[in-house]
Amino acid sequence: MPTYKAPIRDIRFLMNEVFDFSAHYQTLSNGDLADPDTVDMILEGAADFCENVLAPLNQSGDDEGCTFDNGDVKTPKGFKEAYDQFIQGGWQGLSYPEEFGGQNLPQSLNLIKAEMMGTANWSFQMYPGLSIGCMNTILQFGTEEQKNTYMPHLVAGTWSGTMCLTEPQCGTDLGQVKTKAEPNADGSYNISGTKIFISAGEHDLTENIIHIVLARLPDAPAGTRGISLFIVPKFMPTADGGIGERNPVTCGSIEHKMGIKASATAVLNFDNAIGYLIGEPNKGLHAMFTFMNTARIGTAIQGICHAELAFQGALPYAKDRMSMRALSGKKEPEKVADSIIHHADVRRMLLTQKAIAEGGRSMIYYASQLADQMADALATGDNQKFEEYDDRLGFYTPILKGFLTELGYEAANHGMQVYGGHGYIKEWGMEQIVRDSRISTLYEGTTGVQALDLLGRKVLLSSKGKVVREYTAEILKFCGRHARNKYMRRFIWDLTKICAQWNTLTLRLMLAGRKDRDVVSSASVHYLMFSGYAMMAYFWAQQAAVASEKLEKGDGKEEVDFYKAKIKVADFYFDQLLPRSEGHAESMVKPSRGMTGLPVEHFSFDY
Amino acid sequence: MPTYKAPIRDIRFLMNEVFDFSAHYQTLSNGDLADPDTVDMILEGAADFCENVLAPLNQSGDDEGCTFDNGDVKTPKGFKEAYDQFIQGGWQGLSYPEEFGGQNLPQSLNLIKAEMMGTANWSFQMYPGLSIGCMNTILQFGTEEQKNTYMPHLVAGTWSGTMCLTEPQCGTDLGQVKTKAEPNADGSYNISGTKIFISAGEHDLTENIIHIVLARLPDAPAGTRGISLFIVPKFMPTADGGIGERNPVTCGSIEHKMGIKASATAVLNFDNAIGYLIGEPNKGLHAMFTFMNTARIGTAIQGICHAELAFQGALPYAKDRMSMRALSGKKEPEKVADSIIHHADVRRMLLTQKAIAEGGRSMIYYASQLADQMADALATGDNQKFEEYDDRLGFYTPILKGFLTELGYEAANHGMQVYGGHGYIKEWGMEQIVRDSRISTLYEGTTGVQALDLLGRKVLLSSKGKVVREYTAEILKFCGRHARNKYMRRFIWDLTKICAQWNTLTLRLMLAGRKDRDVVSSASVHYLMFSGYAMMAYFWAQQAAVASEKLEKGDGKEEVDFYKAKIKVADFYFDQLLPRSEGHAESMVKPSRGMTGLPVEHFSFDY
Repeated sequence: MPTYKAPIRDIRFLMNEVFDFSAHYQTLSNGDLADPDTVDMILEGAADFCENVLAPLNQSGDDEGCTFDNGDVKTPKGFKEAYDQFIQGGWQGLSYPEEFGGQNLPQSLNLIKAEMMGTANWSFQMYPGLSIGCMNTILQFGTEEQKNTYMPHLVAGTWSGTMCLTEPQCGTDLGQVKTKAEPNADGSYNISGTKIFISAGEHDLTENIIHIVLARLPDAPAGTRGISLFIVPKFMPTADGGIGERNPVTCGSIEHKMGIKASATAVLNFDNAIGYLIGEPNKGLHAMFTFMNTARIGTAIQGICHAELAFQGALPYAKDRMSMRALSGKKEPEKVADSIIHHADVRRMLLTQKAIAEGGRSMIYYASQLADQMADALATGDNQKFEEYDDRLGFYTPILKGFLTELGYEAANHGMQVYGGHGYIKEWGMEQIVRDSRISTLYEGTTGVQALDLLGRKVLLSSKGKVVREYTAEILKFCGRHARNKYMRRFIWDLTKICAQWNTLTLRLMLAGRKDRDVVSSASVHYLMFSGYAMMAYFWAQQAAVASEKLEKGDGKEEVDFYKAKIKVADFYFDQLLPRSEGHAESMVKPSRGMTGLPVEHFSFDY
Repeated sequence: MPTYKAPIRDIRFLMNEVFDFSAHYQTLSNGDLADPDTVDMILEGAADFCENVLAPLNQSGDDEGCTFDNGDVKTPKGFKEAYDQFIQGGWQGLSYPEEFGGQNLPQSLNLIKAEMMGTANWSFQMYPGLSIGCMNTILQFGTEEQKNTYMPHLVAGTWSGTMCLTEPQCGTDLGQVKTKAEPNADGSYNISGTKIFISAGEHDLTENIIHIVLARLPDAPAGTRGISLFIVPKFMPTADGGIGERNPVTCGSIEHKMGIKASATAVLNFDNAIGYLIGEPNKGLHAMFTFMNTARIGTAIQGICHAELAFQGALPYAKDRMSMRALSGKKEPEKVADSIIHHADVRRMLLTQKAIAEGGRSMIYYASQLADQMADALATGDNQKFEEYDDRLGFYTPILKGFLTELGYEAANHGMQVYGGHGYIKEWGMEQIVRDSRISTLYEGTTGVQALDLLGRKVLLSSKGKVVREYTAEILKFCGRHARNKYMRRFIWDLTKICAQWNTLTLRLMLAGRKDRDVVSSASVHYLMFSGYAMMAYFWAQQAAVASEKLEKGDGKEEVDFYKAKIKVADFYFDQLLPRSEGHAESMVKPSRGMTGLPVEHFSFDY
């Protein structure tokens, strides 16, 4: 059974050596709160909580799952106690305003904490995670009264939140939403409809649950332009900040899922439930999109969580399990066989996991700085800066969400594969990681949806390829800066090549797309994966650059080993993972008729 | 919930049009038994049994699983009745000698039947499937008395068999086997030890279970050269062909697994159980290897089973589920949105599944002809022919097992992905396919083991690359024959290129391996996957060649559609899947130090 140990050394490497978070925080209006001592305290406190409270509940939570009984949902044994510790530690309010009881620290610290929590116990992390979306909505679009009514409880964590988007007939295509909102005389609305797949939609961790619900006003236009947002509390808040009457929003059942079984996924029935409009009428979907970037990065983290946990599970097994001899000769002659970590192919799997976890982590950390800047612009009312960082994060988001969750699933599978047949047995805990991680490419926009967002919207429609030209220019500038570093030569060569290819492919697709509209869809996932491999290469090169500079300076032995390992893993990435981009490059430029040409009724002649 | 419909049209295409099974059967000593009417009867009978008896038990079997109670194992509801129907239909004896009650039909028909059964219900198929290994061992190495004692019951299916290899400390590395065999005065042996992961090791389907057990004689040399094979019956057979005393081989528990939950995976404790030596002392492992090729092809089939079932599950959903509009414009303007099958990216997933299922099926069908020839040589005592076909099949086996199970798992995942979030919910049945298929890359030799077998043993050690030179020469001959066929031009160009590359890579690895022994391990999985993509390309080209010839002749409309679809899917394969070979080609020739260079203790600095 994999235990969890927070990768503090790697986290400090990224925060202090690669991305200089200390300097970054100086640029934020609330940055002085994130002084090094506070940051250290948060890292160590989160690590302690995750290793000792959350991780031990991960496997038992999967075994037990959530139970549904006549509208009530019980979380697995220990979850309530762990959640109480979570809120007592003030963890929910880390990055929320002090006026609502939060600590007003930068968003990035929240994301770094979320990775630790998610690795230790993804299902648990879903409960406070869903509140984030709810809080962000209220914070950005709520009236002062709404903020004052809900935020203090949500920030404290004594209430939790949800996002109610999906209905049985639609998930991605929210224009099909049918849930109705009928106005009442007092300014409230009666909400009626069925929402499905509502994570944390019902549970026993908090005294109240605040649903953010997409619904239609009576006179709303059809499609996505007729969707409004409503706050629908499970219990009506009373004037004194307590909870009052039960609102008729009830949990009809919870789903039986492949994984994340300790996370309750509810069917919610709204039967004339009282709701309050939040934001402008019919602008609900637009409002959702304004913070979708940060929400999706929250899911992108799941990729590295499962890669990290599967690596932590596989590494000790690979050191312990003895089987056959290494091809280059006995490594442990005194034993009956060599540990499997001495087989190059087993190392290939372990290093793939490590390259994904640490490469992905660096991508997330960088993006978290953009999220900080965005939040800062919002807090200081700097619209231009907000737009600028929103655009930049908007380019990263689909790549991070799509690419990292696909690779996280791969890494989870490698973890199982290292165990051989034992990986398939529940008690070892490796198969749970695979099951838990499988959801990540499906929810919060499937990989296909991310791919279309990247290629169709962000690259072609909004920027005509400019975003890629600018991004690759940044990479090439980096290459120029490190051109004389002997460790960096091969990275720079490969990066230069892939930047040229990235631009060429973008241009080719732009031109092809003018005549062949479907090519944007047929090429999209290849383009997403290509972009991901290219971007991760840049982030590995950045880590290698820092490591090589430190090596030149010649620090202590333990440090030298760490930096050398970073360069070796970067090398591994460029040797073994980056070349996959070739296949994607070749396939994406094929005409779409290879996919669209087959008539629907000819997909099968047997059924 | 996916239902199963046997792909009879595709099966007939392969049997009658691509591989001319009718002519093939004429070359076998027992081939006249497989006349077209018999073959038809078998296909239709198997399809009926699989669609109507086995498929309906697939999801309920997963839900219920097997239950263990004090040494006894209960299979899920309906399994016993289905198994009774299976043996009443005479299905177990299809390819076994008439003298033991079988029908003496070619092995290939057994494999074709196994695919249908495995697609309908893989867990069920495991029970009769394991008997195959047991029967083949007894048939090839047993004494006349042993054959007469066990074969009639096993062929009838009233008894079943197992293969007991794995122990807690070893699976792949069978040299570590510890189970002991102490000789008794009467020529029998007392077997003691623990075997794990024994599929069908205990269950309630048959009146007796015959275990084939790997164990060590008292004076056996250490390692793989000291392993002998024993027959250990659950109940001692009586002289009159009935069952007698219970032998002390007991089931200690069954495993809780990620999938194939209706298949019982037993821990078996042998406590001075009576066993009988089969074959020569200390030659047990060698004996196992002689029919490992066919056993592994039995597992390779699992890849196409799950690809086929996941495709059958995803296709109707893709036609029904409406979401957004196709990029090239409305396809179903009368509806609220287009069915998702109109999105090129969804088609990419469906066509990937179809290309894997049908491409893989053609590879298996061809290999089944080699298996027929091998079995025929064994039956007619033609050692030279046996060796020749064993060698040929030996080249296919690791590719089929390793590559098709990896791709089958991918296809299962695509099936889930087409469903979006619904794919993660148990009731739809798609996540079960993913869980069931996950075992296929682990058992019967992991993908890494197959890869080492292919590159290390079959390609480099045994043949110094000759096997690839000969195989690519065959492909090039095919290219020459179809050079003037307009449909075939692009396939021939790509095949020619990949054949050259395959030989070059083989040569480079052979040369590199002389100095860098570990490269055979570090390159092995890339080499396996590259070989798989190259081989499947050849099989798709063969299907396209037949289809294009039929098109030239201009058959009826329905036929024309079928052949056109075949060519389109072949095109898709060459556009979208074959290019993945590029990344593997690039990565496999990197020096092994990229993997072996990192010291064991530097894989993590945090844990």
